Amino acid sequence: MVKKAGSRKKSGEWQVRPRWRITRADQIALGPGKADLLDAIDRTHAISRAADEIGMSYRRGWLLVAEMNASFVEPLVTTSRWRGEGASLTAAGRRALRLYRLLEATSLTAARGPIRQLHTLLRAPSNRRRRIGS
Amino acid sequence: MVKKAGSRKKSGEWQVRPRWRITRADQIALGPGKADLLDAIDRTHAISRAADEIGMSYRRGWLLVAEMNASFVEPLVTTSRWRGEGASLTAAGRRALRLYRLLEATSLTAARGPIRQLHTLLRAPSNRRRRIGS
Repeated sequence: MVKKAGSRKKSGEWQVRPRWRITRADQIALGPGKADLLDAIDRTHAISRAADEIGMSYRRGWLLVAEMNASFVEPLVTTSRWRGEGASLTAAGRRALRLYRLLEATSLTAARGPIRQLHTLLRAPSNRRRRIGS
Repeated sequence: MVKKAGSRKKSGEWQVRPRWRITRADQIALGPGKADLLDAIDRTHAISRAADEIGMSYRRGWLLVAEMNASFVEPLVTTSRWRGEGASLTAAGRRALRLYRLLEATSLTAARGPIRQLHTLLRAPSNRRRRIGS
């Protein structure tokens, strides 16, 4: 994942974020990790480099690609060489990834009202004291 | 969690759902498990029974309540007796839970378009064959 230089948001401010998952029983067609893997495959053109870039083992990257390809009508990723070298997104892969990012963006925009109200209830960083129990 | 009689959705159909989390670094103020715990405390009036009802250990229920109470300006749960017997939601607890459920509902409604489009890309149950790799 790409780190933003100078960003101090992570430790200082509360983040309200959705993690979308497409599931059926214990099968996960698409979720945050798989979407990041698709993005990384699109950048690096190899499952091995993509997995490495997002701090995932090569084996896990391969298994996630297999699960995605088994969940969609058309495979999302094709590989031109043995075991994930020369990988790229198919048209279906690009479409699924675009729709997943649209899910995230649409829901964040739509939920601005409740997000703003939740922020008013949250303890500010400077005001942080541990209140265990009541 | 309440099981719906006659529901066959879980194994047969793809579900597209958001899991909202309010985080700051490694601290989680509210998420799906904590929201379910708040609902259960409101029903059972005890952390022990609430944790039991949603299949969580008593210790974990207690730790989640402590983390929630430390994250918000006002505690979300108060306990009237030792270690979580006689627990109830505060006004802030009810408000945070209501806003969290509003987040879920608002985002699902707003994302209907991309959700519908993703469904057209997903493999139907009757059409399920394993396509590993490409």
